Amino acid sequence: MNKKIINVAIIGITGYGGLELLRLLYNHPAVHVVSIHNTSDHAEEISTTYPHLKSMYNLTPIPADPLHIMQSADVVFFSTSSGISKDMAQPFIEANFLVIDLSGDFRLNASEYATWYKKTPAPQHLLDQAKYSLADFYQNDSHYIANPGCYATATLLALAPLAQQGLLDEENIIIDAKSGMSGAGKSLTTSSHFINVNENFTMYKANHHQHIPEITQQLKQWQPNINHIQFTTSLLPINRGIFVSAYVKLHSELSADSLQKIYEDTYQNKPFIRVMTQDQLPNIKQVIGTNFADIGLTYNPDTKYLTIISVIDNMVKGAAGQAIQNMNHLFDLDETTGLELIAQYA
Amino acid sequence: MNKKIINVAIIGITGYGGLELLRLLYNHPAVHVVSIHNTSDHAEEISTTYPHLKSMYNLTPIPADPLHIMQSADVVFFSTSSGISKDMAQPFIEANFLVIDLSGDFRLNASEYATWYKKTPAPQHLLDQAKYSLADFYQNDSHYIANPGCYATATLLALAPLAQQGLLDEENIIIDAKSGMSGAGKSLTTSSHFINVNENFTMYKANHHQHIPEITQQLKQWQPNINHIQFTTSLLPINRGIFVSAYVKLHSELSADSLQKIYEDTYQNKPFIRVMTQDQLPNIKQVIGTNFADIGLTYNPDTKYLTIISVIDNMVKGAAGQAIQNMNHLFDLDETTGLELIAQYA
Amino acid sequence: MNKKIINVAIIGITGYGGLELLRLLYNHPAVHVVSIHNTSDHAEEISTTYPHLKSMYNLTPIPADPLHIMQSADVVFFSTSSGISKDMAQPFIEANFLVIDLSGDFRLNASEYATWYKKTPAPQHLLDQAKYSLADFYQNDSHYIANPGCYATATLLALAPLAQQGLLDEENIIIDAKSGMSGAGKSLTTSSHFINVNENFTMYKANHHQHIPEITQQLKQWQPNINHIQFTTSLLPINRGIFVSAYVKLHSELSADSLQKIYEDTYQNKPFIRVMTQDQLPNIKQVIGTNFADIGLTYNPDTKYLTIISVIDNMVKGAAGQAIQNMNHLFDLDETTGLELIAQYA
Amino acid sequence: MNKKIINVAIIGITGYGGLELLRLLYNHPAVHVVSIHNTSDHAEEISTTYPHLKSMYNLTPIPADPLHIMQSADVVFFSTSSGISKDMAQPFIEANFLVIDLSGDFRLNASEYATWYKKTPAPQHLLDQAKYSLADFYQNDSHYIANPGCYATATLLALAPLAQQGLLDEENIIIDAKSGMSGAGKSLTTSSHFINVNENFTMYKANHHQHIPEITQQLKQWQPNINHIQFTTSLLPINRGIFVSAYVKLHSELSADSLQKIYEDTYQNKPFIRVMTQDQLPNIKQVIGTNFADIGLTYNPDTKYLTIISVIDNMVKGAAGQAIQNMNHLFDLDETTGLELIAQYA
Repeated sequence: MNKKIINVAIIGITGYGGLELLRLLYNHPAVHVVSIHNTSDHAEEISTTYPHLKSMYNLTPIPADPLHIMQSADVVFFSTSSGISKDMAQPFIEANFLVIDLSGDFRLNASEYATWYKKTPAPQHLLDQAKYSLADFYQNDSHYIANPGCYATATLLALAPLAQQGLLDEENIIIDAKSGMSGAGKSLTTSSHFINVNENFTMYKANHHQHIPEITQQLKQWQPNINHIQFTTSLLPINRGIFVSAYVKLHSELSADSLQKIYEDTYQNKPFIRVMTQDQLPNIKQVIGTNFADIGLTYNPDTKYLTIISVIDNMVKGAAGQAIQNMNHLFDLDETTGLELIAQYA
Repeated sequence: MNKKIINVAIIGITGYGGLELLRLLYNHPAVHVVSIHNTSDHAEEISTTYPHLKSMYNLTPIPADPLHIMQSADVVFFSTSSGISKDMAQPFIEANFLVIDLSGDFRLNASEYATWYKKTPAPQHLLDQAKYSLADFYQNDSHYIANPGCYATATLLALAPLAQQGLLDEENIIIDAKSGMSGAGKSLTTSSHFINVNENFTMYKANHHQHIPEITQQLKQWQPNINHIQFTTSLLPINRGIFVSAYVKLHSELSADSLQKIYEDTYQNKPFIRVMTQDQLPNIKQVIGTNFADIGLTYNPDTKYLTIISVIDNMVKGAAGQAIQNMNHLFDLDETTGLELIAQYA
Repeated sequence: MNKKIINVAIIGITGYGGLELLRLLYNHPAVHVVSIHNTSDHAEEISTTYPHLKSMYNLTPIPADPLHIMQSADVVFFSTSSGISKDMAQPFIEANFLVIDLSGDFRLNASEYATWYKKTPAPQHLLDQAKYSLADFYQNDSHYIANPGCYATATLLALAPLAQQGLLDEENIIIDAKSGMSGAGKSLTTSSHFINVNENFTMYKANHHQHIPEITQQLKQWQPNINHIQFTTSLLPINRGIFVSAYVKLHSELSADSLQKIYEDTYQNKPFIRVMTQDQLPNIKQVIGTNFADIGLTYNPDTKYLTIISVIDNMVKGAAGQAIQNMNHLFDLDETTGLELIAQYA
Repeated sequence: MNKKIINVAIIGITGYGGLELLRLLYNHPAVHVVSIHNTSDHAEEISTTYPHLKSMYNLTPIPADPLHIMQSADVVFFSTSSGISKDMAQPFIEANFLVIDLSGDFRLNASEYATWYKKTPAPQHLLDQAKYSLADFYQNDSHYIANPGCYATATLLALAPLAQQGLLDEENIIIDAKSGMSGAGKSLTTSSHFINVNENFTMYKANHHQHIPEITQQLKQWQPNINHIQFTTSLLPINRGIFVSAYVKLHSELSADSLQKIYEDTYQNKPFIRVMTQDQLPNIKQVIGTNFADIGLTYNPDTKYLTIISVIDNMVKGAAGQAIQNMNHLFDLDETTGLELIAQYA
């Protein structure tokens, strides 16, 4: 392992993503967090706002001055809401400074971004510099990493082995995705009030979630005839975790054993993807707090539908953990560095 | 309303279904519960075992003697595990005594029952006397009501308007169903331990749930070319409620407005089915504690998939409430009698 | 039972209390809800805002015009935040019109109100017309009922049998009270965000809860030497329910049996108070959705502390249910009318 | 830090405590887990039984042979139910082999153990070799560490600063303690069924919890006139966490500031104890997954009661984490080694 310390700056520290970066980076052996930055004026010592950080971090958010960040840090994480990094990224991109962006601003082409986020996209010459990077299929060729969204990560990992071999029936890809509350962030809305979430289950943004174009864009790279997916998202009354149920048909009939083997082969050297034994399906709890994506398959010979279950922790594999995995790649560290975590069982 | 009092006996009082019957029947203006019966030897006063019944019921379970029940009651509810009523029902059936059976024993034909329940079915001449009765589509022609299962109820109500008109693409009916814990009953298993349910989400019995043949059997009556459905069931970390997400294609393309109208027309005179405004989807909380099934639709013109959401309280509409609705039919009462309940919002 | 229909108006319909009144009054055999009133301008049909009311209520909130209300209704419920009824109640009080006020505005004397609610109290001549009425100890002598607070109800019912006999050691009355989220209302705050409540437990307003003076004021009427109580409140990660743990010493030592008998005697003719068997303690679930207060005792001969557990549903016994019980008294109905409810066990 | 690797054996691997040891020891830089041992015959590869351990541990439980363990390991953890280690510990004790016992078998003297655990205690000469060790007040003088219980840890840390100075009014020490479900272990009982825990709150073992004598025994060492405490335990509907509310009076009146200072002084060099700012109270969430005990104080000048809140993760600080802290002491490691963990905020 490269023993040099990586100096890290984080922009957008008050959301769940930023806090999760702080939690995970604390135990990363090669990282030092040099500065944290708010996009608002709020400037209280971080452990005053968040008592769980008391005695662990003595940092106070400061304004995000790109020049200062580039002088003191080796890499900057954007853990901001959509619409922020597209306006702030320019000096970093022009200086070829390493950026890992957890927001959606650089994941889509300009037209898709405008359609799905209903905001003006980043200028094209900046978008051209960014690379969408599903960390488990990482190919290093950019200074600007667009870190995938949580639903997109779980869905793409569920479908990758089949799409990469062009096996999916492109008209019948049905994704029923569910997420815990943290995926929706800290904003105070009726839909995040405890009473409306607890003992409830709600579908939201059916066919309208902004991760849809992100998924189809990547699937298309693997299997070009895929133009759309049937994709719905629902809110689970839990804090963390994504459970993706994918129901797919294949162009040619394959045995359950063959399908299982395709998944095992695709993921055999990927330390964060654990393929379950055939017909065994993973549950959310087994990955919470970790960077694992656990995947299970079961085939129905009557309906010809294959059910693929993919579970991740939306805050780790779906955000901060994958971002650190991408950082490890950028710095030629073992990709598991700082991310060897076991779920709390009880 | 017929002012005669209906004397009710309940067999199988220690499970959730029996307790829910007691809860609902307490406020039924035409019912008196004359006796409760255990299938085990346990014979403690019911409010000692269940303090929530204190001061409301002074009943002690007694052995289920058919002759005695037929002398003292007008109708008997079986709220027993599968495998009980098939052996106990004979004297009631032969006497043409009214029975409402909440268990699965008389829902399927003999061969399907043997396959899915892995038990010896009831004799054919008894099965012939029973009638599967989805209460909202009730047709009175039997003394023995096989009350539908919870998942089956939610799924059939979601699909009925399309199936009844033969509109479903029979090869692409995908049901992703989720239920709260009470659906699985009181037995103490690893999968019902709090730690394994709370903050978790688990798929179980994928393609193997015993409600599958019950659903296809009824769908087939409406649309004969339906032979199978893609059906999975998952456990939500909540006490009550079923949320069915159905993804279906249609044989001919219909506008979203036409689809909405088909549902509104089918359910316009059915007091317990509430069709939501187009593109508005119901959540579980709005039906908990009630006999409502709330249904919402949203159509995706890109994928040609219609998403149908159906929510019920598995203990009420999915069990005891529907059983009482069926009882109301048998006694020519208004079907809403005793069932006009509003969900607790908070 | 008096068969005359009571026409009810409700002011403050958008909070949990108002919705719970609607839920309970729907099945009250002697009540018709004639109008609902908002204190804001919002005027959408109520079942549009709250889909769980669809097909049950066709009401749209209108401005609260006292003259109009007094012409069309027999009684008005205030289910408003603190600070509203003190300003709106005057015309009702001056007309001797029946008011049941679920808010805190008329529970305290002017000086205590100013101190604990940090608001200008109602004028003294109006306060003089109001009567604080713990429904289970109701004495009819006012047109204006100040309905007790939820914590106050649970605590007073726990202590009443001892205080009424002057038995409490007034320096060692320790109340550790816990409530589900609905007690805090619908406002969107960091502390009501799902993530901050779920899998958490938080003490708030320690020694500062506004129900403290309400409790001591009533205790003092029973046992005049009581001047203060040690009282803390915590938030349980559940929707409903209050669990009061009271730890008290007595002036003279009494046997556990004698203590049990004092409670059984005090509550023997009170249909909503269920005293558990000695050393058996109630849990929250057994009263949810009902107007019961369940009370259990256990005495520790080593420490000389008696533990008293009192559980209620904060929305029913602690708000809307008790208000209806008070209404039943005002109209000389059996106090259980419309309130004979059994908790959902599962 | 001593770079020698500590070889660890764990007896009792199927309970939550053993699994938590595996989780935490995985990232302990000086530990290698050499063997795990069941007390039953079950011998499946651990990650088959517990999929969350897949790819992290390749261990299969083997019978616990003391000689073999002493040859291959440097220390053994007992993470067994009560009644096991008292029978199995003898060869380890007689060989002066290092043992850290998470069970209750060696925490009490023989007579107290017999009374509270209703089992035959370990022989006196073995009990004499064991040392009850609250890790934050560790004094190394034994090979056999009796690791404190979860409730005892939270309570003792709440009271230590006052007891150590003899300040507590010994007749009015009231502890209202609450715990998440994992504290009760994996056994399948009615009280661990999801339906009975979720949306509920239950007091259990009031005045009878086996941690009571453990607490009084330690308090007595600090303040000899303490003979009893008023102590109740309740079950929170969450997975993890203990929240202790202690209500105490003092012999002499001290200002709130002085009390705060006593706590800050006592804990100023103890890295795992975080004293909150005066009148700020910790919540459970801020310590989950960590070895911290967070403590907050608020004084009521009217009642003269001081409220002390102490929160811990029952599985970490209350079990496996404290055991590792004790192990770090035994091996002269920094006590925080492997335990520098930050709670998941969301």
